[in-house]
Order: sequence, then C-alpha cells, then structure tokens
Amino acid sequence: MEALKEAIRSRGIGIGDDIVKVDSFLNHKIDVKLSTEMGKAIHEAFKDDKVDCVLTVEASGIAVAITTAQAFGGIPVVFAKKGNHVNVGNDVYAADVYSFTHKQLNSIRVSRSFLPAGTRVLIVDDFLANGEAIEGLRNIINQAGAVLVGAAVCVEKGFQPGGQRLREQGVKVVSLAIVDAIRDGEIVLRD
Amino acid sequence: MEALKEAIRSRGIGIGDDIVKVDSFLNHKIDVKLSTEMGKAIHEAFKDDKVDCVLTVEASGIAVAITTAQAFGGIPVVFAKKGNHVNVGNDVYAADVYSFTHKQLNSIRVSRSFLPAGTRVLIVDDFLANGEAIEGLRNIINQAGAVLVGAAVCVEKGFQPGGQRLREQGVKVVSLAIVDAIRDGEIVLRD
Repeated sequence: MEALKEAIRSRGIGIGDDIVKVDSFLNHKIDVKLSTEMGKAIHEAFKDDKVDCVLTVEASGIAVAITTAQAFGGIPVVFAKKGNHVNVGNDVYAADVYSFTHKQLNSIRVSRSFLPAGTRVLIVDDFLANGEAIEGLRNIINQAGAVLVGAAVCVEKGFQPGGQRLREQGVKVVSLAIVDAIRDGEIVLRD
Repeated sequence: MEALKEAIRSRGIGIGDDIVKVDSFLNHKIDVKLSTEMGKAIHEAFKDDKVDCVLTVEASGIAVAITTAQAFGGIPVVFAKKGNHVNVGNDVYAADVYSFTHKQLNSIRVSRSFLPAGTRVLIVDDFLANGEAIEGLRNIINQAGAVLVGAAVCVEKGFQPGGQRLREQGVKVVSLAIVDAIRDGEIVLRD
C-alpha cells in the first residue's frame, strides 16, 4: 500500500539490523487518516471472504482492527487481552505468546462467548515478524471451532520467518508493506 | 447518548455494587458501529474547543479514541503505554496510575516528541471511575506544557468520585452515559 510505504520511508526509523520504529504514526502516535486508509486496503483484500469478525491482540493492533471493521460495514472487533485480566473471567480461550520485543511469555485470552463456533475470523495486527501473536490467535480460533479467513498486517518484516511460515501452511496473509532489510539505518521496502 | 445507554441496558451486566461489565460491546468485543457513533457524539461535545490531538491510555480506550479522532477529521491519537515498554525509550513523560481493577500501580508513558508544548489535547477513555487514568494523563499533559481541553468518556461511574473531582477542578468532562448505581444486578443509568 503506497501511502503506508511512503510513511515508512519518510517517518520510519531503522535501528540496528532488525528494528523498524514506526511509533510516530502506527503504534504509539497514530496517524488516523492513514489508519483509516489501511482499513480500507485490508477490506479490499478480504472483501470476498465473508468475514464475520476481526480479531486482534491488545494494544497496538486495535486501531487498524477498528478501521478494518469499519470498512467491512461495522462488523465486530474482538481483541485478545494479555495477562491475567481480572475482568476477563475464567471462561476463556487462552494461548501462550512469546514476545521478542519484551522478552517474555504472555498469556492471551479471549472470552469464549465472543467467538462462537463457525465464526469467520480475520486476524489483523500492526506487525508480523516471527508470527508468534498470529499463531496464538490462530490457536484460539482453532479452540473455538471458528474459521480463520486470513491475516492482515500493516508491516511485515520479510526477513523474519513468520509470514513465510504462515503462507506455507496455506494461510492467506496480506501485508500492506514488507520490509526486506534494514541497512545503515535505511528501511529497505519490497516493491 | 441514547444508543450507548440502550446498549448498557440490553447488553451490560451489573455485578455486586460496583462492577459494570460491558465487555460484549465496549472493551473486549467492540461494537464498531456504536464506537463510531460515540466518536461522533464526543466530537459534537468538543467541536468548538480547537482539539489538536486525542490522548488515551492502552488498551481499551484506543477504539473510541480512534473514532473520535476520525470525527474530528482525522487528527492524531496518542496512546500512553503501560509499564516499561522496550520500544518507548527513555525520552518520555511518565506518571503513576493506580488501577483499582488490577490492584496495582502502573507507570504510563508518552514519548516527549508526540506532545509538543501548546498542543490542545482531548483525553478520551472508555471508563471514568476514580479518575486515576485521567489524572495520570493530565499529569503528562502538564509536564509537556500542553493544554488539557477536556476529557470524554463512554461510561462514568457516577457513584465513584473521579468525575465530580475533575469537574470541581474546572475540567470539562463529558460522559456519554453515567451509571448511578448497581442494584440487584440492575445498572441504574442517570437520565
């Protein structure tokens, strides 16, 4: 998606050989116009897939999950919660997700009542790197007997294995921008 | 706001004498159509206040922060992060916030670069009870030399002191629904 690529070129910061810092428009400060356009682009990619519900994980996936759900005409968003939320209760599907960013294992949870069997679910997230978050959400979808329609992410780190692994397993993965490398602080985007 | 009140009446669950469970449409599963309408209602209340930016705290405030920013024509959202996020860095404004839900003290942080002095900031959140989150965000706004335009929340617990305290201090607080009590499982809404 050209507008996202342009934002990454002009406002993203490459650090070391693997960090793509986009917190000025994607996951700390949010460019709401861009987020709204990204939702429309994701809808365009999945509009024929009969999506019932968007599933993401707190916190930075929520913005684009909302704009995606709007583009689908206002379908519900469910966001998995991290850790032992007092408010979630015990009647949940849970999965363990390792966060490379935070170097810790998080439990993510979704109340069972919000994922009825047969629900056609589109996973949406801001980043896809090793694919841990999406695997955790997929695990929850499987537990629920729901249907994984596919996964849409804003930025895929093409040099990490998550996207390739999911595609090899037959999951429809759509990334609005793919970073192939970070070289001398420059973020190299795939055409 | 009538649509929210109706959702609370029909889908909210009152527990004990102080828990308003609205996770089926507000803060776990999200009714995106309602969230979009709430954003418009918040815009209506603050449209003459020259808002530059919406500030919230992860995670459950993000949805309505996004829809509010959309209603303002696509102004930016900044969400404060909880805890010691590796990705946030050290150049931050920080404040301590006690969570009654989770019975713990959280540090919330905002990168300094995203709150320039003079920015006119509208705080948006899903809930207002004791007002701890809003006080923390207000603390950060003050540190930044930014301007607090006001605070908009979806649900205020009118039987807890946060809203009254903020109003007594001269803060413009707009709540789309106010819960006056929970009696025998019934959520009593203010007219």
